[in-house]
Amino acid sequence: MGKDDVIESGAGGGEFAAKDYTDPPPAPLIDAAELGSWSLYRAVIAEFIATLLFLYITVATVIGYKHQTDANAAGASPDAACGGVGVLGIAWAFGGMIFVLVYCTAGISGGHINPAVTFGLFLARKVSLVRAVLYIVAQCLGAICGVGLVKAFQRAYFVRYGGGANSLADGYSKGTGLGAEIIGTFVLVYTVFSATDPKRNARDSHVPVLAPLPIGFAVFMVHLATIPITGTGINPARSLGAAVIYDKDKPWDDQWIFWVGPLVGAAIAAFYHQYILRAGAIKALGSFRSNA
Amino acid sequence: MGKDDVIESGAGGGEFAAKDYTDPPPAPLIDAAELGSWSLYRAVIAEFIATLLFLYITVATVIGYKHQTDANAAGASPDAACGGVGVLGIAWAFGGMIFVLVYCTAGISGGHINPAVTFGLFLARKVSLVRAVLYIVAQCLGAICGVGLVKAFQRAYFVRYGGGANSLADGYSKGTGLGAEIIGTFVLVYTVFSATDPKRNARDSHVPVLAPLPIGFAVFMVHLATIPITGTGINPARSLGAAVIYDKDKPWDDQWIFWVGPLVGAAIAAFYHQYILRAGAIKALGSFRSNA
Amino acid sequence: MGKDDVIESGAGGGEFAAKDYTDPPPAPLIDAAELGSWSLYRAVIAEFIATLLFLYITVATVIGYKHQTDANAAGASPDAACGGVGVLGIAWAFGGMIFVLVYCTAGISGGHINPAVTFGLFLARKVSLVRAVLYIVAQCLGAICGVGLVKAFQRAYFVRYGGGANSLADGYSKGTGLGAEIIGTFVLVYTVFSATDPKRNARDSHVPVLAPLPIGFAVFMVHLATIPITGTGINPARSLGAAVIYDKDKPWDDQWIFWVGPLVGAAIAAFYHQYILRAGAIKALGSFRSNA
Amino acid sequence: MGKDDVIESGAGGGEFAAKDYTDPPPAPLIDAAELGSWSLYRAVIAEFIATLLFLYITVATVIGYKHQTDANAAGASPDAACGGVGVLGIAWAFGGMIFVLVYCTAGISGGHINPAVTFGLFLARKVSLVRAVLYIVAQCLGAICGVGLVKAFQRAYFVRYGGGANSLADGYSKGTGLGAEIIGTFVLVYTVFSATDPKRNARDSHVPVLAPLPIGFAVFMVHLATIPITGTGINPARSLGAAVIYDKDKPWDDQWIFWVGPLVGAAIAAFYHQYILRAGAIKALGSFRSNA
Repeated sequence: MGKDDVIESGAGGGEFAAKDYTDPPPAPLIDAAELGSWSLYRAVIAEFIATLLFLYITVATVIGYKHQTDANAAGASPDAACGGVGVLGIAWAFGGMIFVLVYCTAGISGGHINPAVTFGLFLARKVSLVRAVLYIVAQCLGAICGVGLVKAFQRAYFVRYGGGANSLADGYSKGTGLGAEIIGTFVLVYTVFSATDPKRNARDSHVPVLAPLPIGFAVFMVHLATIPITGTGINPARSLGAAVIYDKDKPWDDQWIFWVGPLVGAAIAAFYHQYILRAGAIKALGSFRSNA
Repeated sequence: MGKDDVIESGAGGGEFAAKDYTDPPPAPLIDAAELGSWSLYRAVIAEFIATLLFLYITVATVIGYKHQTDANAAGASPDAACGGVGVLGIAWAFGGMIFVLVYCTAGISGGHINPAVTFGLFLARKVSLVRAVLYIVAQCLGAICGVGLVKAFQRAYFVRYGGGANSLADGYSKGTGLGAEIIGTFVLVYTVFSATDPKRNARDSHVPVLAPLPIGFAVFMVHLATIPITGTGINPARSLGAAVIYDKDKPWDDQWIFWVGPLVGAAIAAFYHQYILRAGAIKALGSFRSNA
Repeated sequence: MGKDDVIESGAGGGEFAAKDYTDPPPAPLIDAAELGSWSLYRAVIAEFIATLLFLYITVATVIGYKHQTDANAAGASPDAACGGVGVLGIAWAFGGMIFVLVYCTAGISGGHINPAVTFGLFLARKVSLVRAVLYIVAQCLGAICGVGLVKAFQRAYFVRYGGGANSLADGYSKGTGLGAEIIGTFVLVYTVFSATDPKRNARDSHVPVLAPLPIGFAVFMVHLATIPITGTGINPARSLGAAVIYDKDKPWDDQWIFWVGPLVGAAIAAFYHQYILRAGAIKALGSFRSNA
Repeated sequence: MGKDDVIESGAGGGEFAAKDYTDPPPAPLIDAAELGSWSLYRAVIAEFIATLLFLYITVATVIGYKHQTDANAAGASPDAACGGVGVLGIAWAFGGMIFVLVYCTAGISGGHINPAVTFGLFLARKVSLVRAVLYIVAQCLGAICGVGLVKAFQRAYFVRYGGGANSLADGYSKGTGLGAEIIGTFVLVYTVFSATDPKRNARDSHVPVLAPLPIGFAVFMVHLATIPITGTGINPARSLGAAVIYDKDKPWDDQWIFWVGPLVGAAIAAFYHQYILRAGAIKALGSFRSNA
């Protein structure tokens, strides 16, 4: 969603002087000019590298902690007692890396690092279909490479400690897992929409400045709440990457939950933002058009 | 070292052109125009959704951790020992979610997500009576739905682990619980007033930009200090929602503490901000009016 | 130091056009005009309330955690094992409250909440002697009231768990404790000077905007490092308040460390900032004066 | 990389009016004017003090926690179990101090505090060779002094608890350690390049304002992931300082990993930023030059 669009729609009429922001026009499905620009390919590379680093750091944290507590205490009860400590550290790893990587890539690719975010922004017509598909492919490949690096570095512990793969915990139904993924992704994508809304960016100075921080915190919060249920996906590339490298039945059997859940959650967030929260803007545009 | 009143007090009269901020006029009790605008209903919906997400994430964190430590250690002493670990994660869940949600809803509804905040801002005449009542109803309904979702997802563990309900811990008197709720809510509402003060917003660039972060941290801090005493309410909607869904005698018996305490704390914060911290501005306004 | 001073000293001469910032003139020792302004007394009240809230939240966190782990595990070894968890939470309580309170009071009193900070800024001639003395008295009274509130709320546990008082841990010499307090306070006051420097405020946009956050983090960091040595004072009002209410020999015997250390650390930070880091500015001012 | 450079290169030609940012010209290898300016020596002093404080706080945290858990539990298994708790606190100490110190020194020296960062910025021609060498010497001396202070304060525990020195953990190959250091430093230096890029600073308001925070978080994240592998260097001065003061065979044998890894990682990050992410800008500059 470029800032350049401001100029384009501002050209529409003098009535816009009363508005202190402009919504860009919807992104086309296929934008031929985009395909010829280096900035698209640079953005795809940035998404690949960012998702690789995201999975490397987070899965290494998961494996490293499990190794450490297990090796020190040799299966005695105290390591179970402190499993919760690891959960806080792991939640920080996921949320903190999203903060850092959104900060680093926001100006290059928009900082998606997550097919659910890309899908939500595509539904809202903020990225073209071509860009969305290229991003999602790059994110999935990056995630596979990132988890692969951890496996190469932690050969001895990777399989023993579950490879950071997402699957439904014992005692929870598939419906619960799906619901948790839907709501978790809704929290994340709702935050992304709030952070990138042109209307709010113009009016609240904290919106554009802080943006990467609440997005990272949203990921941190959702991990605190849903690690006990599904390990927390809310990012299909993350779940796919870990499943491909770990390659056991359970994560593959549950894999659909980590695609259907996040994509549905992102779609609901896109709908909520576009039709409920921004409805006033849509109506205002409508009356402007009827006046013209 | 105030950035101060130098200009303001030097002015002393109709030189209000020299003021770099303006206080909005007090909100009316009932604003007919407001009732006809979509932005009011959108704000009420945003408060409902935000409070729902707040309770869902936080109560899921509370239940999930208790389940995990208990299940792993099967009632052995180590899980009790590391209950404190969960307390840090739980305090982060409450504070972090308030940060994310205030960031997301500030431009839509003002980001209250808490009847005590709404009450404090109503006392300071910053929201109308109608808006305050609609917000509080939406917050309470949202909280009930949020806790209800956790119960639906965690059927097996919800009741066993206390349902995230607030009640006075053993060994503390009702007076102590009430005092802890009053001071805790004072910290929160004082931070909200500091963050939204038009005078400070105009003068200190960090005030509007950081705003949601210290509000979230205030909630985090109060949870660290008062989880051992009352579990920490400082938000009547949160306490009501958990009591309605958990529905046991103890939380209902103590429920009044979680309404009287926060509302009194919010009132004291509103008084402190309006009559102590902003007194100079009020005096200046007084002399301006007598000149006019 | 206010941005308004820019206007005042900028009036001095056109040579200032070449500089993008101005240093305010040194504060007088006794400023008669200041004594007659409400803004001074409002600032003193704000320091009193902020220090009260700071001690209430932090000491309640200290006592609450010790109570909880002790009561649950009844003296078994696991609670010792998780003492470290409490240390992280306690360090967050101190650092996080300073962040929140500096955010809330920066525009009212400058957000000192600490006699060492006031002393450092006085040495750098950024506050008058009268203001410094009034602030320090208000901070000490606020700290005593804050710890008193915790004692009133936690009567059963306050004395048993050490009342949050600072004293030298076993196995450390007085010299080590003094050194740790000096360096810890240096870190804090150096950060305060960096955050309030008019030259850097004009040039780096992150300096004024983020200001309260690194100040809070500096306190958090110093607590992580020095809780095992002295419990971490770096704030004479905090150490005095806890000693007065706890009132045992050990904290009183060590009390001098928590005044001498912080005041020396603050003085070194003031010297470092004024004579090393800002020396260029001082020279520039010198040549300006010789030109005039 | 001062903002002043903008003015300098902006003077080059009116064509720059079409660009909303300017890249400064490459720094010369040896800048005679620089050698005569106080600002260079002030920057070197600031790097020395910042690296000293960084090592003092972080190594004191490492030693203090190990001492505390060990002393309380007297070698029983629970202290091993909660070693992971310390890991989260230790990761915070490293990341949080980098946040605070980058905030404090960014305007004075650029806030490197790390030879790998200095090396990466030198490769990108953002600092001169002379400045890079002086910074690295100052950083190494500061690190040695900082660890030396901890040893002086913690004489009894320093050697017993490993002196905060970096070395490869058991069960990991040298290649894994080297790889972990390369990727970890890549994450850090990539974040530094993103934060200081003039193009992004001009376009995204959050880039310059938040800058020190994601840099600190990058350090925090890398520590979470790689403490189990190498203890986490990603900063040759940090590893050298601890090795010099601890002075045992193992850290000296592995020392090369903590120089080769970070320098290679920084070089890859510099290459990635300059040739992939900023390639468009380079091309634009190229066409500008051919037009001129």
